[in-house]
Amino acid sequence: MIFHDRARFPRGFRCASRNVGLKPQARDLTLFASDVDATAAAVFTRNQFPGAPIILGRETLKGGTLRAIVANSKVSNVATGTRGVDNARRMAAAAAAELGTDAGKVLVSSTGVIGVQLPVEKIEVGIRGMSVDLQADPLVGAEGIMTTDTHPKALSVAVGDATITWVAKGSGMIEPNMATMLAYIFTDAAFDAATLDRLLRDAVHVSFNMLSVDTDTSTSDTCAILANGLAGAVDEQAFREALIAGCIRMTETLARDGEGAEHLLRVTVRDAASDTEARYVAKALLNSPLIKTMVHGADPNVGRILMAIGKCFDATVNTSATHAWVNGYQVVGSGVRLEFDDATVRAALAVEVVDLEVSLGAGTATARAYGCDLTKGYIDENAAYYSS
Amino acid sequence: MIFHDRARFPRGFRCASRNVGLKPQARDLTLFASDVDATAAAVFTRNQFPGAPIILGRETLKGGTLRAIVANSKVSNVATGTRGVDNARRMAAAAAAELGTDAGKVLVSSTGVIGVQLPVEKIEVGIRGMSVDLQADPLVGAEGIMTTDTHPKALSVAVGDATITWVAKGSGMIEPNMATMLAYIFTDAAFDAATLDRLLRDAVHVSFNMLSVDTDTSTSDTCAILANGLAGAVDEQAFREALIAGCIRMTETLARDGEGAEHLLRVTVRDAASDTEARYVAKALLNSPLIKTMVHGADPNVGRILMAIGKCFDATVNTSATHAWVNGYQVVGSGVRLEFDDATVRAALAVEVVDLEVSLGAGTATARAYGCDLTKGYIDENAAYYSS
Repeated sequence: MIFHDRARFPRGFRCASRNVGLKPQARDLTLFASDVDATAAAVFTRNQFPGAPIILGRETLKGGTLRAIVANSKVSNVATGTRGVDNARRMAAAAAAELGTDAGKVLVSSTGVIGVQLPVEKIEVGIRGMSVDLQADPLVGAEGIMTTDTHPKALSVAVGDATITWVAKGSGMIEPNMATMLAYIFTDAAFDAATLDRLLRDAVHVSFNMLSVDTDTSTSDTCAILANGLAGAVDEQAFREALIAGCIRMTETLARDGEGAEHLLRVTVRDAASDTEARYVAKALLNSPLIKTMVHGADPNVGRILMAIGKCFDATVNTSATHAWVNGYQVVGSGVRLEFDDATVRAALAVEVVDLEVSLGAGTATARAYGCDLTKGYIDENAAYYSS
Repeated sequence: MIFHDRARFPRGFRCASRNVGLKPQARDLTLFASDVDATAAAVFTRNQFPGAPIILGRETLKGGTLRAIVANSKVSNVATGTRGVDNARRMAAAAAAELGTDAGKVLVSSTGVIGVQLPVEKIEVGIRGMSVDLQADPLVGAEGIMTTDTHPKALSVAVGDATITWVAKGSGMIEPNMATMLAYIFTDAAFDAATLDRLLRDAVHVSFNMLSVDTDTSTSDTCAILANGLAGAVDEQAFREALIAGCIRMTETLARDGEGAEHLLRVTVRDAASDTEARYVAKALLNSPLIKTMVHGADPNVGRILMAIGKCFDATVNTSATHAWVNGYQVVGSGVRLEFDDATVRAALAVEVVDLEVSLGAGTATARAYGCDLTKGYIDENAAYYSS
């Protein structure tokens, strides 16, 4: 899969972002718009306290049609009661008025601090005239939805005559069902809403849903796809492969930019009894603080890999046929830590991308999970997030 | 429950510790001995890769009788294969020879790095003559089993004419079934092994099993109780209450000394649909990195409490009747973050012991979990544990 050097939009999609006064200076509001109605599908957080935009979004997506997305950063509009939902509706209405469309075709997202009412008047005032700014660079839209992300995130790829474009933000509170807090996918390929929904869920299953930064699950997680059909029909299988590849690539981008992250950590579990068990063990290893700090310090304390497998009480583990590798270097064989040169394993760990591979000897299922190391930067960002 | 100012042993128990060369200088081997046979019960880690001492210990405890415990720090003898189990047997035999008892009455524990063979010869040589050192201060025994603990841990309490004494060590890799890595309980009360086993399990259920430092589960966790009967029978109910109180107190001591911890964090969940759900939600809050860093920074980002409750997909949560308090100060009411003065909540968080209370409005069950904040100290200790 060849991704474009610089992300571009499919036909008929544009975006704009600006500062409307939620943050002191940085862009805090983004508008994505399609020239024509697009079929749409989305998956949202499973958190039992979803943000107001999620409550509204589930309703909006029932129509299966979107024309625009409006998203703000800084305040997530979560735990804000009925006033919060009213404010989300006002935000959709303001975007619809600016674009000359119906509020029922506008998806709303908010990301940022939980439990603070949305300053919706600032958004209503600030969005006026924003349609004039609409332009072709996805990174402009990505910039307006950043919170603790260190850089805006977008990518695109061609599928036949069509394009698929991803715009997303992370970067903590990512896990375990619906990972990236906000990920938008745009395409000019033509699909009906049911097909789009199925394709999206398949792709999310092996990508964003296998991403975890810290085991916490955002109340705002949203992944939406819009297909405006301007490129006509494309081969579904080719589209599906490109969609999965892009979602995995964006997942890795988000993991690599997890709060405080210095390493991308990938955990592959093989020979598991089932897909469910493979995913469960991969997540357990990925989320183990002792594995994460081992990777952070490039400390060859690989016995922790067995500890983390072993704490999966509900997984079938063939303990005498369990093997493990660190970036291709075998460190555990038949359930026992192998003798090795510490310096070699230290070197294998001290690279930017660390792959841990585990074979459970219990079946034929495989899964891969994506995350990052645990660093002091994570603590710096989260011990004073509200206050800063 | 009035605990002694300084922990003391029940009748007939003594201990000794020394350096046998596993650590450069600090004490690394402890011997606990009873003058007479004691009935015994124990619970061990559920990790699927238990250490060699656990494999041996399960066998030893079948007899229901112990005379001694021998425990070393620095090397945990985990993931060491059949040679590891042979070495654990040699360690039991060495202790038995020194004390003039049977190896089948000696419980072995090892704590420290995973995946390194035990230098058992050093232990066999070092233990010789150790019975001469046996004396009455439990802290001497506690000292020999420390790893990253910042202080030795022991406490004792009187129950009628009998005494119960706890000696334990933490302090990371504590969760979720069997918490403290090593906790030994000694009493001169008389109980048969079956009663002792039941009492121990009841106490562990609400104490050590509700302790979590980092969600990782040690491969070496052991909690054993020895009753040598030298004080005769005591009132079972009074003993039970004292046992539970002491186990909870030791749990708090271990949590407070969790790796890098600066705060003791207690999470109480009330009005849950079942005991299982109350425990599940309490653990989820306790282990949430975003809650832990909020406590660390005394950051009044209390919306995270709703996030952490909401990520418990499998718990019954009455979202419109969920309330939360920080050290008695209500911050969430009816599922919505309340308006409050940030400085007040910041002050409520900025004390050594932080109590989070949550009411789920879903039933009548209650549970409490014990842990600590997440700090840079945790990362310092764990990014170079093997290497240091």
